[in-house]
Amino acid sequence: MTDAKSAQTLRIGLIGYSFMGSIHAAAWQSAPKFFDLAARPEIVAVSGRDGTRAGEFATRFGIGRVETDWRRLVEADDVDVIDICVPGDLHAPIAIAALEAGKHVLCEKPLANTPEEAAAMVAAARAAADRGVKSMVGYSYRGTPAIAYARRLVEDGRLGQIRHIRARYLQDWIADPDFPLVWRLQRERAGSGALGDIGAHLVDMAAFVTGQHLAEVSALTETFVKQRPLPEASGGLAATAGAGSGEVTVDDAALFTGRTDGGALASFEATRFAAGRKNAIQFEVNGSAGSVYFDFENLNELWFHDHTLPAAEAGFRRIHVTEPDHPYVDAWWPPGHGLGYDHAFVHQAVGFARAIAGGPAAAPSFGDGDYVQRVLAAVEASAADDSRLTPVPAAGA
Amino acid sequence: MTDAKSAQTLRIGLIGYSFMGSIHAAAWQSAPKFFDLAARPEIVAVSGRDGTRAGEFATRFGIGRVETDWRRLVEADDVDVIDICVPGDLHAPIAIAALEAGKHVLCEKPLANTPEEAAAMVAAARAAADRGVKSMVGYSYRGTPAIAYARRLVEDGRLGQIRHIRARYLQDWIADPDFPLVWRLQRERAGSGALGDIGAHLVDMAAFVTGQHLAEVSALTETFVKQRPLPEASGGLAATAGAGSGEVTVDDAALFTGRTDGGALASFEATRFAAGRKNAIQFEVNGSAGSVYFDFENLNELWFHDHTLPAAEAGFRRIHVTEPDHPYVDAWWPPGHGLGYDHAFVHQAVGFARAIAGGPAAAPSFGDGDYVQRVLAAVEASAADDSRLTPVPAAGA
Amino acid sequence: MTDAKSAQTLRIGLIGYSFMGSIHAAAWQSAPKFFDLAARPEIVAVSGRDGTRAGEFATRFGIGRVETDWRRLVEADDVDVIDICVPGDLHAPIAIAALEAGKHVLCEKPLANTPEEAAAMVAAARAAADRGVKSMVGYSYRGTPAIAYARRLVEDGRLGQIRHIRARYLQDWIADPDFPLVWRLQRERAGSGALGDIGAHLVDMAAFVTGQHLAEVSALTETFVKQRPLPEASGGLAATAGAGSGEVTVDDAALFTGRTDGGALASFEATRFAAGRKNAIQFEVNGSAGSVYFDFENLNELWFHDHTLPAAEAGFRRIHVTEPDHPYVDAWWPPGHGLGYDHAFVHQAVGFARAIAGGPAAAPSFGDGDYVQRVLAAVEASAADDSRLTPVPAAGA
Amino acid sequence: MTDAKSAQTLRIGLIGYSFMGSIHAAAWQSAPKFFDLAARPEIVAVSGRDGTRAGEFATRFGIGRVETDWRRLVEADDVDVIDICVPGDLHAPIAIAALEAGKHVLCEKPLANTPEEAAAMVAAARAAADRGVKSMVGYSYRGTPAIAYARRLVEDGRLGQIRHIRARYLQDWIADPDFPLVWRLQRERAGSGALGDIGAHLVDMAAFVTGQHLAEVSALTETFVKQRPLPEASGGLAATAGAGSGEVTVDDAALFTGRTDGGALASFEATRFAAGRKNAIQFEVNGSAGSVYFDFENLNELWFHDHTLPAAEAGFRRIHVTEPDHPYVDAWWPPGHGLGYDHAFVHQAVGFARAIAGGPAAAPSFGDGDYVQRVLAAVEASAADDSRLTPVPAAGA
Repeated sequence: MTDAKSAQTLRIGLIGYSFMGSIHAAAWQSAPKFFDLAARPEIVAVSGRDGTRAGEFATRFGIGRVETDWRRLVEADDVDVIDICVPGDLHAPIAIAALEAGKHVLCEKPLANTPEEAAAMVAAARAAADRGVKSMVGYSYRGTPAIAYARRLVEDGRLGQIRHIRARYLQDWIADPDFPLVWRLQRERAGSGALGDIGAHLVDMAAFVTGQHLAEVSALTETFVKQRPLPEASGGLAATAGAGSGEVTVDDAALFTGRTDGGALASFEATRFAAGRKNAIQFEVNGSAGSVYFDFENLNELWFHDHTLPAAEAGFRRIHVTEPDHPYVDAWWPPGHGLGYDHAFVHQAVGFARAIAGGPAAAPSFGDGDYVQRVLAAVEASAADDSRLTPVPAAGA
Repeated sequence: MTDAKSAQTLRIGLIGYSFMGSIHAAAWQSAPKFFDLAARPEIVAVSGRDGTRAGEFATRFGIGRVETDWRRLVEADDVDVIDICVPGDLHAPIAIAALEAGKHVLCEKPLANTPEEAAAMVAAARAAADRGVKSMVGYSYRGTPAIAYARRLVEDGRLGQIRHIRARYLQDWIADPDFPLVWRLQRERAGSGALGDIGAHLVDMAAFVTGQHLAEVSALTETFVKQRPLPEASGGLAATAGAGSGEVTVDDAALFTGRTDGGALASFEATRFAAGRKNAIQFEVNGSAGSVYFDFENLNELWFHDHTLPAAEAGFRRIHVTEPDHPYVDAWWPPGHGLGYDHAFVHQAVGFARAIAGGPAAAPSFGDGDYVQRVLAAVEASAADDSRLTPVPAAGA
Repeated sequence: MTDAKSAQTLRIGLIGYSFMGSIHAAAWQSAPKFFDLAARPEIVAVSGRDGTRAGEFATRFGIGRVETDWRRLVEADDVDVIDICVPGDLHAPIAIAALEAGKHVLCEKPLANTPEEAAAMVAAARAAADRGVKSMVGYSYRGTPAIAYARRLVEDGRLGQIRHIRARYLQDWIADPDFPLVWRLQRERAGSGALGDIGAHLVDMAAFVTGQHLAEVSALTETFVKQRPLPEASGGLAATAGAGSGEVTVDDAALFTGRTDGGALASFEATRFAAGRKNAIQFEVNGSAGSVYFDFENLNELWFHDHTLPAAEAGFRRIHVTEPDHPYVDAWWPPGHGLGYDHAFVHQAVGFARAIAGGPAAAPSFGDGDYVQRVLAAVEASAADDSRLTPVPAAGA
Repeated sequence: MTDAKSAQTLRIGLIGYSFMGSIHAAAWQSAPKFFDLAARPEIVAVSGRDGTRAGEFATRFGIGRVETDWRRLVEADDVDVIDICVPGDLHAPIAIAALEAGKHVLCEKPLANTPEEAAAMVAAARAAADRGVKSMVGYSYRGTPAIAYARRLVEDGRLGQIRHIRARYLQDWIADPDFPLVWRLQRERAGSGALGDIGAHLVDMAAFVTGQHLAEVSALTETFVKQRPLPEASGGLAATAGAGSGEVTVDDAALFTGRTDGGALASFEATRFAAGRKNAIQFEVNGSAGSVYFDFENLNELWFHDHTLPAAEAGFRRIHVTEPDHPYVDAWWPPGHGLGYDHAFVHQAVGFARAIAGGPAAAPSFGDGDYVQRVLAAVEASAADDSRLTPVPAAGA
């Protein structure tokens, strides 16, 4: 690869080849087709523990190099960006090594499995930033146009003073007690259960849309099914049950409430036991001047109530967030032709690529990701202390 | 009135002539037109402090007698039933006197403003029951066909083991800080704010539909607007602001979570600050075999997810609860011709009239109403104690 | 009955005691409880061919007199209003006789079974009007607040120039081929099938909301099931199948399109074979400045799109038509507490009572009802003529 | 390009680089990442009249060769597939030349602008098929999982005997009379207006889902705005108005009804004047055993009513068509993570690639496309003949 080409190319090293790896890979490759970018992203290598599967992945996505040790990518001269798509226990070591090696880092959420790891990652990101090295955490729903438009409405004052934030993330994939004990149900791999996997998205989304942060939380968590069959093989989340059983060491569901630094009441629920809800991120904000409501199961819709209209003609309006004036949309299809789950990852890739090229700062930052981790830590502390209201610890505390 | 006629007539004495009084009056008068009843309800007298307004009310509803002291109705020989439609501070004295006088009592919710009053009312109801005197508390939403059908689905095992109860009652009528300090915002009249007014309905509804009761709760309450203008006159809830201001002494919003005696996680929210939500009772139950969802703003709909169907054809189905096989519906219109808010009160009146005539026990009982009060008391205790998980006190404790 | 009383009372003679009779009776009795009326409606007599059933009806509704010949009511001195709730073949003789006898007439829809009858009724109504006698036809959906509010939005110019009217009335009660041959499936009683029963409502609704009238129509009609079992007994619409079968002589479904006198394109569908649709009146109007959408299965909602807003924040907004500023609503419950199917009949009764007392003209008039009949006649003519565009005949033509 | 590589590669020549060209290009490139294909699609060349814009397009999509004359692609040795994404007036000459040159052809819809062209294309496709050359027309909505699942339900007998097909395609992009006269409003380029552009999709969708075809149609068409400003430049559909005006020579809206060969009644509407409807394909089928409903504005949902269930528990159920058992979905994300408009084009590309590799026949075929053209011709004939019921001409007639 010549210097000339590298000047125009943003060379990605992708770590992880599962569901999240594939969606990141497709996003990097779609981005330059629909968005103007200073440098064209190119995935130059993929790394995964299982070389055969990583090789198959590389073939599918047209990636020229395969590694089985992520360190090879971190050390590689021809890699500009490390994109981390592996479980949370590996986030800190990879991200810190990559940042120290001068690579820009896009890290899947949650940032880390422990507050200590998160703090170390923030420190590494700050040190790297001084050297012009960028970092970003993958709270991808920020790239969903409806969510980004909700934020814009808040920023424009259309909601007035925020009174309520109400967020649920409802799934049902482990409602069956015979669903096996996959890695996401094991604390040492996943960090936590519904709380960290999906509740984390809600915490970030609330902060993103409202600009307010939780000051204190009260929480209840529950593990409804405490023993599950072991999975048949070390497969992904769709594994079938095998012989033997093991203990579920994470929460099945988490409820928490709190107050924000802006005086709003907030309530959150994350569960994998809501039969019939598949990926229902139900998010509502009520302010003195208006409200917004969103459900990811209709991801192209934002419902907006303008409370300043005469009561007789007011009501939640269904905005199909597919107009050219909506965030990200002018790159895509005409009005009414909806986007999918994956397009938000394209927007995430575009945002990071532009930040690297000197555009607006990459968001959410590792600091934003650390905020989420601190909230989750306070949630777990409260749940362990009879739901007592627990302050969210300050950054670096 | 001759004996012959009284043998066929259920003679009602109505106390209160405001919004709730009018809907009760209309319900008593509609009931025999559409339902078979052993005795025809007849409102023989209405009582209210303002004799002029009570008289106007009597004219509208064709009621022959007007009193300005409720004691006249309690003492009257020609009254079989006392129907209490006044604020909560008067519930205990009226109900206890009426029960002691041998009158059947239908009492609006919440049962009482304090746990002590509620306990005394339960005791009076039990003593009266031994003499064949019936009592009932007005959690009218039990009479909404969609809610009654949800209960039937749970009873029939269609939801399996209950995992989640999720209930919100969202209104917005005081979101404007200039809305005046009406009686519902004063603790001495109303007992509590959103919690007792609308949160109480949620607590009863959850128990009614699932048959489970809260064992412990954790709560947050908030008064967003602490001073409000005094109302211009001692009008109802639609009063306009006058001169001067006063302190809001009740909650504007209450959030609480808890665990039920059946092992479910429950979350509740009651607020009057949800801009754009008018009377949104959003109620969902998730079980191992299915889920139900209801929103009162579409009161004729129940959404049911049958989790035992193949995943490809499963989904929340919108049941228009207007079929002859649905609770109460065969008395009314053909399928698809919806009922309104008021029909539930007709069903309530029918239920009480039938209980008096020896039919199934009147429900909800004063004991059921007391359960709600005990939950509300635990909610307030938890909110005052840093949201700590607080046991719901046992009846009579 | 003394003059003094009759001066304050509007004395109703009700003809018919089936579903429609009961809803009219309840409406007359509810009206003065919630609306200010110059004279209090009182149903003084009910007439029906089956004296026993009419007597039971009278008992339920507290009506003092029962007749088995409608002529007794038309001739009665103590009857001010004749309310006709029997099948269409009896509308003309009763209405004309009543008008000639100086009675105000409220006649259920459709106005008549033939154009000739309709024309005669219009003539009788006009002659009576000169003597101060009022008449009205029962297109009750005009009294549904959401529909009345849609009309107001059009009147206020909020939709701009109307381009499209799109109306469907979908039911499914005869989708089962074994459903018996009830009177509504017999041309000599019902006049027509889905077309006259439910399609008629759409034609009136379109004219009411938009103020435009159909100039020409093109139509297709179909009878999917041509033979059905005879009903077991001469019951109502819920009759069960008995022995033998007979021919269905009305349409099961009717589709028609047309142009209005205002240059809009209109499309209509009425069917009783739309499995899963119970009483789905789906009504949409698109104009240059906005659109409205309504579905009776959520009868308290009107969806309004304001096309003059910036595209990014525009969308169909769900107006819960339960605000005090909405038509009829201030007489009823607080915002969010919905009304039912029957409340529209109360509003119809109020409208007619006020017209009789000298208020705004009763609407829809017999002339409006005749317009619907002329459209239906043109629809049938077009359907019989290879769907050819057929002018709607002028009144009196 | 070596033989070895060409054996594993499906070499595409893309004609057209506008909106439709970009979505086709992205689809070809995404297909092998998520689906198993015998040969990897590769876009080897793009052709467009404006070489500069075509070159920019090629850079975005990583396409190595640019031509300004489509004949170069048809003649090229290294092209296996010609993908036609230009306006309808060019479909016939390109497709016929390509088929004669032995290229497989994917042609955007509508198949052609005239019945004669369509017939010639069908003949060319049949002749080519004898030589193993495949062809397909781009009714892409067949690849929307919800639509494909609706077809499966019909095939599985879940709807029983079809009674009604009800289809609307509502847009609003020319509701403003000042929107300029773009090519889609000119008959010589576009063939027809809303009818051929979007109505054509409905005709194909109805046939695909139900397996029934229209036998006769009755139609109304309208051009509401007959003169429009000329566009400022020869831009795409988003052009701004310039000086001067010109005549709109296509329909703004088309309504048509008909009967199918299976005895169902069908109704269709296509319009660009439905303010607030952006890309609302509202599609419903009612059968004796069930119904389906779809609205593209929520493209991941299919509503299914199972009419064989007890009435009390029946209702339209919202199936989120994102389960592994749904058509195409197992290649993508977990349940609840929706797809977008563009994914249907990936499925279309996959279907064509597999047909070329010897898999199931490519559908819809040119014959299917010709059926749509024959329906559209009958619609125009009926509209020109006072809406008279007009038989759909037989193929080759």
